[in-house]
Amino acid sequence: MARPLRVSSIGEFGLIRRIKKNAQKQLERVCVPCDPAILLGIGDDAAAVLPSPGNCLLVTTDILLEKTHFDLALSSFFQIGYKSIAVNLSDIAAMGGVPRFYLVSLGLTGKESVSDMDHLYQGMFWAGHEAGISLIGGNTARSAFLLISITLLGEIPKNEMVMRSGANVGDCLYVTGTLGDSAAGLEILQKRMRKGTFRGLPSKHQMPMARWREGRLLAQNQIPSAMIDLSDGLSSDLSHLAIQSGVGARLECKNIPISPTLKRYAKSIGANPYDYALHGGEEYELLFCVPEEKRDKLEALIQNGEIEARQIGKLIPKRNGILVKGIDGAIYKLRPSGYDHFNEKR
Amino acid sequence: MARPLRVSSIGEFGLIRRIKKNAQKQLERVCVPCDPAILLGIGDDAAAVLPSPGNCLLVTTDILLEKTHFDLALSSFFQIGYKSIAVNLSDIAAMGGVPRFYLVSLGLTGKESVSDMDHLYQGMFWAGHEAGISLIGGNTARSAFLLISITLLGEIPKNEMVMRSGANVGDCLYVTGTLGDSAAGLEILQKRMRKGTFRGLPSKHQMPMARWREGRLLAQNQIPSAMIDLSDGLSSDLSHLAIQSGVGARLECKNIPISPTLKRYAKSIGANPYDYALHGGEEYELLFCVPEEKRDKLEALIQNGEIEARQIGKLIPKRNGILVKGIDGAIYKLRPSGYDHFNEKR
Repeated sequence: MARPLRVSSIGEFGLIRRIKKNAQKQLERVCVPCDPAILLGIGDDAAAVLPSPGNCLLVTTDILLEKTHFDLALSSFFQIGYKSIAVNLSDIAAMGGVPRFYLVSLGLTGKESVSDMDHLYQGMFWAGHEAGISLIGGNTARSAFLLISITLLGEIPKNEMVMRSGANVGDCLYVTGTLGDSAAGLEILQKRMRKGTFRGLPSKHQMPMARWREGRLLAQNQIPSAMIDLSDGLSSDLSHLAIQSGVGARLECKNIPISPTLKRYAKSIGANPYDYALHGGEEYELLFCVPEEKRDKLEALIQNGEIEARQIGKLIPKRNGILVKGIDGAIYKLRPSGYDHFNEKR
Repeated sequence: MARPLRVSSIGEFGLIRRIKKNAQKQLERVCVPCDPAILLGIGDDAAAVLPSPGNCLLVTTDILLEKTHFDLALSSFFQIGYKSIAVNLSDIAAMGGVPRFYLVSLGLTGKESVSDMDHLYQGMFWAGHEAGISLIGGNTARSAFLLISITLLGEIPKNEMVMRSGANVGDCLYVTGTLGDSAAGLEILQKRMRKGTFRGLPSKHQMPMARWREGRLLAQNQIPSAMIDLSDGLSSDLSHLAIQSGVGARLECKNIPISPTLKRYAKSIGANPYDYALHGGEEYELLFCVPEEKRDKLEALIQNGEIEARQIGKLIPKRNGILVKGIDGAIYKLRPSGYDHFNEKR
């Protein structure tokens, strides 16, 4: 008998493609045309439906699991609560939407202290309050370990929605903030290093700030042709965006924004800061594409201090793939090596 | 030092009350008035928000965990997929809403076979197709055991929405379908009995049919003053409804609908079928309250075969609590003994 094909063999993105294909087959088989209210289904940062004309409802959901997504030895309950909301806010940000409401489902062992749960929710309320969103529901269940499942709803005028698939060859590639801090921060926490020395890196991992203000600003000004949030890492997420837009890309390492602290940290351990910036996950910065004619508008916003963003490359034809020009001037192919939850082959 | 208060000491509903209170305190502390778009927050079957005037958006979310909610030895992947959608459809049904879209988040070990995952989704697609809803998104992550988190969106005209809190003293209490089958079915599966003898009971546990058609029919005809779905069990869910409506209730055992198969099964093991009906969980039938003046309208629908429902009691003043008149004519107080995920004291 043949060995069954395991999820670990096809990887996270193989599984998602398969689900998407099966969902479409199912619709065809039963002759149900796709619901016209669905603007955007499986495969972008959030799903979008159109319950009322003109205004889209955005929905995103994310699970955070103990050991997979957080470690109680490295983050406080407050930080975990904060981050669980932030990662979902980031998905709404990547569509350019206004976050509105959230639901929280918890899996608990029952042995958690009530005070720890209060802190978990205080962290959620804090992140929620910053973004002006309200907790409207959820559910709780007994689980062998702590798990948090968040559903976040947002909205956006239909004509302002930004998808992963709208980019064109020639568009400039921008990123908000600085890259690599979160991955380095996790390393520092895991090594139990004194945090004071590299202040800022661990907190970027523990309490990332979702770029909902920036995402909204960009969408409102109709600047990006495509956008994605950096949850898996620049190399992986750029590859998702490039595939969905049918383009290639060329990055300039020297333009990738690296924080002074990350430079100092990398130097202290003899590492290359660009490795963190290219492949480190959980940044929750926004990666977006800007058509040439919209660049002046964006650069004006940057000049006015309304958004912190920097051009890191350009989109090129798909056949050229994704290229990086290193600090040494050499050009090489970038292989996505961000996070895939199931793939054993790295 | 005092021992910390554990979640298991305050129980599932104690925790939910605490979250609700803290969420409200948070809003007051930061002087944010509650978002006027929130019609209904924490504490009903689904949350309801009002993104567009007149039409409510309903949102519900539920996690299903291996061992807690399902057992791979007792249910197939197809059945688990079907049930995971059904339990969420049931929450929308309890508000009287029209289910529309769903998102699926999976936690997987990676060792699952791809074919098992296909069957899981086939079960979801089947339940979704029956109800006319579409999969629009989700996410996947690595987990130590299988977990499924579903978010379901529905809609309802604002003036038709049915909550848990609208019942009044004097209203008649009705229930759809028959009660106790699911709990008996689980017992049969756990005892590894030959299923043929009591056909129907195990499948009510494995693939419950959500009453979204019935919930919608009732709401459209503006019949129920309050409604809840029976997920925790009649005694528990009636107590939730009674508390939220500020009423008591009096049940008549002889009127509780029991299937012939459950009667036969209970007799064969020397058990009382009403114990299953009063306290068995995971029924996913609807329990609803009907004001006297709406009874004729409901009875006409029942006569026409449009809905299968039966009166099982009446609402009485809160101070009288929840009473049951047994088959022997004796009246006793009903204590909620349905499912609480964390409470150790039973």
